[in-house]
Amino acid sequence: MARDAKYDILFDPVRIGPKVSPNRFFQTSHCAGIGSERPGTQALFRGTKAEGGWGVVFTEFCSIHPESDEFPFTSARLWDEGDVRNLRAMCDEVHKHGSLAGVQLWYGGMHSPGLEAREVPRSASSLPSNLLPARTMYSAECDEDDIKAIIKMYVLAAKRAQDAGFDLLEVTAGDSTFPVQFLERRYNKRTDKYGGSLENRARVFIELMTELKKVCGDTSAITTRYEIDTLQGPHGIEAADEGIRIVELLTKEGICDLWSVKIGDYEEWGEDAATSRFRKSGWMLPFIKQVKGVVGDVPVVANGRYTSPDDMVNLIRSGIADIIGAARPSIADPFLPKKIEQGRPEDIRECIGCNQCVSKFNQCGLLNCTQNATAMEEYRRGWHPERFEKTKESTSVLVVGGGPAGMECARVLGERGYDVHLREAEAELGGHLRYVVRFPRMNEWNRVVTYRQLQLAKMKNVEVHLGVGKMSADDVLEYGADKVVIATGSRWVGNGLGAEGHSPIPGCDASLPNCLTPEQIIAGKPIPGNRVVVIDGDGHFTGISMAELAADLGKQVTLLTNMSDPAEYSQFTMEVQNNKRMLHEKGIRVMRNHWVESYENGKLTTFHLYRHGWALTDPQLGRMPRRESEDVEVLEADAVILVTAREPIQDLYVELKQRRAEWEANGLQAVYRIGDCHAPRQISNAIFDGHRLAREFDSPNPQYPLPWIRERQLWGADTVPVLGDIRPVVEP
Amino acid sequence: MARDAKYDILFDPVRIGPKVSPNRFFQTSHCAGIGSERPGTQALFRGTKAEGGWGVVFTEFCSIHPESDEFPFTSARLWDEGDVRNLRAMCDEVHKHGSLAGVQLWYGGMHSPGLEAREVPRSASSLPSNLLPARTMYSAECDEDDIKAIIKMYVLAAKRAQDAGFDLLEVTAGDSTFPVQFLERRYNKRTDKYGGSLENRARVFIELMTELKKVCGDTSAITTRYEIDTLQGPHGIEAADEGIRIVELLTKEGICDLWSVKIGDYEEWGEDAATSRFRKSGWMLPFIKQVKGVVGDVPVVANGRYTSPDDMVNLIRSGIADIIGAARPSIADPFLPKKIEQGRPEDIRECIGCNQCVSKFNQCGLLNCTQNATAMEEYRRGWHPERFEKTKESTSVLVVGGGPAGMECARVLGERGYDVHLREAEAELGGHLRYVVRFPRMNEWNRVVTYRQLQLAKMKNVEVHLGVGKMSADDVLEYGADKVVIATGSRWVGNGLGAEGHSPIPGCDASLPNCLTPEQIIAGKPIPGNRVVVIDGDGHFTGISMAELAADLGKQVTLLTNMSDPAEYSQFTMEVQNNKRMLHEKGIRVMRNHWVESYENGKLTTFHLYRHGWALTDPQLGRMPRRESEDVEVLEADAVILVTAREPIQDLYVELKQRRAEWEANGLQAVYRIGDCHAPRQISNAIFDGHRLAREFDSPNPQYPLPWIRERQLWGADTVPVLGDIRPVVEP
Repeated sequence: MARDAKYDILFDPVRIGPKVSPNRFFQTSHCAGIGSERPGTQALFRGTKAEGGWGVVFTEFCSIHPESDEFPFTSARLWDEGDVRNLRAMCDEVHKHGSLAGVQLWYGGMHSPGLEAREVPRSASSLPSNLLPARTMYSAECDEDDIKAIIKMYVLAAKRAQDAGFDLLEVTAGDSTFPVQFLERRYNKRTDKYGGSLENRARVFIELMTELKKVCGDTSAITTRYEIDTLQGPHGIEAADEGIRIVELLTKEGICDLWSVKIGDYEEWGEDAATSRFRKSGWMLPFIKQVKGVVGDVPVVANGRYTSPDDMVNLIRSGIADIIGAARPSIADPFLPKKIEQGRPEDIRECIGCNQCVSKFNQCGLLNCTQNATAMEEYRRGWHPERFEKTKESTSVLVVGGGPAGMECARVLGERGYDVHLREAEAELGGHLRYVVRFPRMNEWNRVVTYRQLQLAKMKNVEVHLGVGKMSADDVLEYGADKVVIATGSRWVGNGLGAEGHSPIPGCDASLPNCLTPEQIIAGKPIPGNRVVVIDGDGHFTGISMAELAADLGKQVTLLTNMSDPAEYSQFTMEVQNNKRMLHEKGIRVMRNHWVESYENGKLTTFHLYRHGWALTDPQLGRMPRRESEDVEVLEADAVILVTAREPIQDLYVELKQRRAEWEANGLQAVYRIGDCHAPRQISNAIFDGHRLAREFDSPNPQYPLPWIRERQLWGADTVPVLGDIRPVVEP
Repeated sequence: MARDAKYDILFDPVRIGPKVSPNRFFQTSHCAGIGSERPGTQALFRGTKAEGGWGVVFTEFCSIHPESDEFPFTSARLWDEGDVRNLRAMCDEVHKHGSLAGVQLWYGGMHSPGLEAREVPRSASSLPSNLLPARTMYSAECDEDDIKAIIKMYVLAAKRAQDAGFDLLEVTAGDSTFPVQFLERRYNKRTDKYGGSLENRARVFIELMTELKKVCGDTSAITTRYEIDTLQGPHGIEAADEGIRIVELLTKEGICDLWSVKIGDYEEWGEDAATSRFRKSGWMLPFIKQVKGVVGDVPVVANGRYTSPDDMVNLIRSGIADIIGAARPSIADPFLPKKIEQGRPEDIRECIGCNQCVSKFNQCGLLNCTQNATAMEEYRRGWHPERFEKTKESTSVLVVGGGPAGMECARVLGERGYDVHLREAEAELGGHLRYVVRFPRMNEWNRVVTYRQLQLAKMKNVEVHLGVGKMSADDVLEYGADKVVIATGSRWVGNGLGAEGHSPIPGCDASLPNCLTPEQIIAGKPIPGNRVVVIDGDGHFTGISMAELAADLGKQVTLLTNMSDPAEYSQFTMEVQNNKRMLHEKGIRVMRNHWVESYENGKLTTFHLYRHGWALTDPQLGRMPRRESEDVEVLEADAVILVTAREPIQDLYVELKQRRAEWEANGLQAVYRIGDCHAPRQISNAIFDGHRLAREFDSPNPQYPLPWIRERQLWGADTVPVLGDIRPVVEP
């Protein structure tokens, strides 16, 4: 099918300095945890997006020099010839599909942890980092020689980038990096020609862009990712004031071939990569709308977690931007542009704004994506998001349970040509998402369901049976499928058992009116009384959502958690700041590092996890080997909401396995389990499980994964550098 | 010199199953962040310890199978032939020096984050991990087939370990790993023959050890690292009860060739790797003393951060243990045994118990060591802890400042044969450590000073000048040295400037009696009044030490921090639990996520960092783009202690650099800076800086590091596995 003409504008080529992007789809730089250390993963992850129609595809942030060592976080690096070799693999893949490759040149200054290189980063002033304040990261103040040296570092890295094949050389002037550390008064305490007036503070940025333009600008586009508003009000850079004036200064110099505009400083990264719980598509437009009017013909990129082609067209037609920037939407669906081009935008797998992706990077791990199980697996497992190996078997598969794991497994089995029967007890697909999407402001997560629903409906070899009730082992045995996949999910425990102590809480019983699980609340069980305590042993979105929901009902709410922070996982999803703002605004009391002894007669007896003494006493049988303390805080609680732990719904799997002797007579060859009924984890795990099982369904034992390529040093293989290599001279 | 005969006992060979350790020095398994991914670093780091006389040298924890994927934390791995190849490099290095190589076989069960392999770990029961509770890590419950499969995983990994060359195959039955998840009632909720009675709960551990003994025991020692007390009182395993009974059960079976005994479960890892702030050498003996009486001739290893050979001899003679286990002391001084053997125990560089090492691992970084700057650098920079390349130049070097950086730089320059003058303004060496060691219970950190003091005193080519007062630029220029190293340190700022906002706090002024910096307090400035607030923007040990010190003086103390946890860095040093216990015991109020607007007339106006609304409002110039809030909490404070930030003492360096034109006339060739006067960071950074500068002093520009070997995949190099490899079958 051809694309709808109304979307034609999205496919206009766009000139960017000496380069031309084939269209208006631009994958902005985004973290992934791969860097220059996993060249195959990097090449295929980014290359797949080029194949899917993204006209420009960037690396993640890319360190220009060991002084900006982001380790233990994984950046790309352009430090040496080894990096050139590794990133060239990415450029080659991107070029193969006719797209442009971009690299984000990064010098982190005081915010670089430096745990591998152990160098001293430089900045406008000698100050501690506010990014990871407990880690004692400080910069040294630059003198003029230092400024020249760092500009030289950028130039050397830019030349290496050209050598690797990058088309766009983007200077980050966001995320509180080196240029911003000069631009912002917060960081710039200088009294020389690089400090004081805005013109002085902008001098480094201008000198840097000018030099790059001079040295590399003939053949490469010199661009910036620019933070127009730090979201700190007058204490930072405000879009309407210095934010736009900096754009004017650079425009006057003619040294920037493209403006990719963002908001929020490094502390407020969560406002740039905002989750759907807090921000809806396009939230940053009020901050960036002035740029286009200043820069004239120079293209402007706007991000905003756009997944709808109509919204994209509106954005272009509004004149605010020329190019649609995207990070997360390009992860959730690398083929988003292609699907618009092919006239099937309904097939777009839309980002749900959950920030699983960055949450894994922030743990120093590898990106993964709730919606796209193939992200990061393109190279190491050979998975393509849109191509599936057709099975040679004519096998019928019964999938029991239409939650995330079951839906995804059925979808991929369907794509592979199996005869699939997906049976769901309830009237709707979605599993536990059916209630999760009804938590405050979490409706976008329903895209997990709707995408799969539609894909399943399109496949003739997939039958979806809804409202069939709970299947027994007999039902399954009699069903007649060759193979069975159990995906029966999990439930919140009703007895207060959690990771803290791994014991039920006496008096907690969700069959009572005053003890409630999240499912029960969404299903309509009333929360009695006024004083409500959420017992959160989970730490992700459920506990805080229950607290908010109860507060919105007018309850007086306490969020009690064993962890050190409310919704502790939100430090990784970067919702932590807005979570705390929400708790503060709604007057929700937070008790950290506490757990519960009992809930009896409306009294919740809580204790501080560290109430016993710090000294170890000689062991005495039956006692804590510490100065014991019985300190408790007793709360009056009319109701408790139990977000303590989940348990797998595994009885069907267990019974079927126990009745293995009966399989053959019933024509049943194999039973597998996936998702929460195997182990109740994050949604992305459940979807990955279902996807992987289906991809490897004809392997010898698909319950367990096949080996995947590990990218790491093998002893005896070459290294770059080798001992004795010299340091490139950057000093003036 | 020959060793003192009283230490002979430490050098007795010890039989361990079919192997013999050449002596009683045993480097227990310890994390380092290298794993199987950096084979050269692993080989030389461990090999150097063997060279230094450690009779047994272990890897870090070593995952037996992708189901136990510890990523983003770095374990060793024995998953495939690539790991065999990589770890063989370590075994070869260890064997070269006549020592035994050990590997700790690890299956983490529910505590494995699994961010790379994405498999589902198995355990005794289906439960969430209490280790990283916000990360939603759950295990699947094993049936009997699963138990057999996991034992098979151990066996396959053990065979790979033998192939790599390991002599000791150690099963961890500590750190709440798989065997412990069966042993402990907390995790084991089973009702079959693997649950219930202790005999049932110990069945998996016994079956596993029996199988390993059978398959590998003829040629390898089968040993365990065993957690005899979880330190949870009757809620866990108590040494005197089940802890010792498990030892009896295994001893009866004759399946364990060595017992390496530890205390504290995974939650209380900080009690096993305890810091000197909380535990003095040998603290765990009361918990482990019964083992030797049960196991008879089987050797017992005891750890306890022993650095004194006399303490070691006493331990052996006490009959509690046969072997001295050490992790941190072997990092701080890889040549500890050799120095005893060579009759120079005073040269031992003693561990200070700061836990820098594990703090970097816990950040997913690479280990580093405050005392030993060469740790992890043996391979990648070619540094040997005890061998130094003699300089060919006859160069005189003036080092200005006798803090950690200056002392270390002078020491290494001295070892290299330079003519070194170390000049310290004050009457004693130590720099800021002079006051740090007087914080509560931090006296062991003085070993940083005493070690270097002694080494400097031994070198004829090093002069140490104390009490010379502050040197001016004129003094330096006139001094007559060929090269100068500035190491003038840093000071705490007195105006409240911190990373939070990077602005001074109005009213904070350490020249007033009621505003105090840590140095001032230790120097004797009295803390006025009763109500004291510590403003901690640093998050490491200083703020909490000041709070404790003030509480010990009987003050009513509040510890206010911008971070989410008091002494937030202690999550990495694993002091967090005892820090919180101490705060609770001493009644110190903690205010997290707060900062200070002003301190006027004894009123400290504090605010919650997240007081403004979560919604973004349209930008309005001069306002926060949020629903603004003026919420404050005003505290009555008789005194505030300012632990907000440090500033470099850099005036001497800056002036010298500005007067470059005068250098030549004064015979001065170069001026460098190291340590806190360059950027005020952790002590380990300062010492590293000083060490590195001295190692590379004759490089073209030693101010900046030479390139080092990066161990990572290079595109085009071989990988293991490759796509299409099959999964080793472990299912029964």
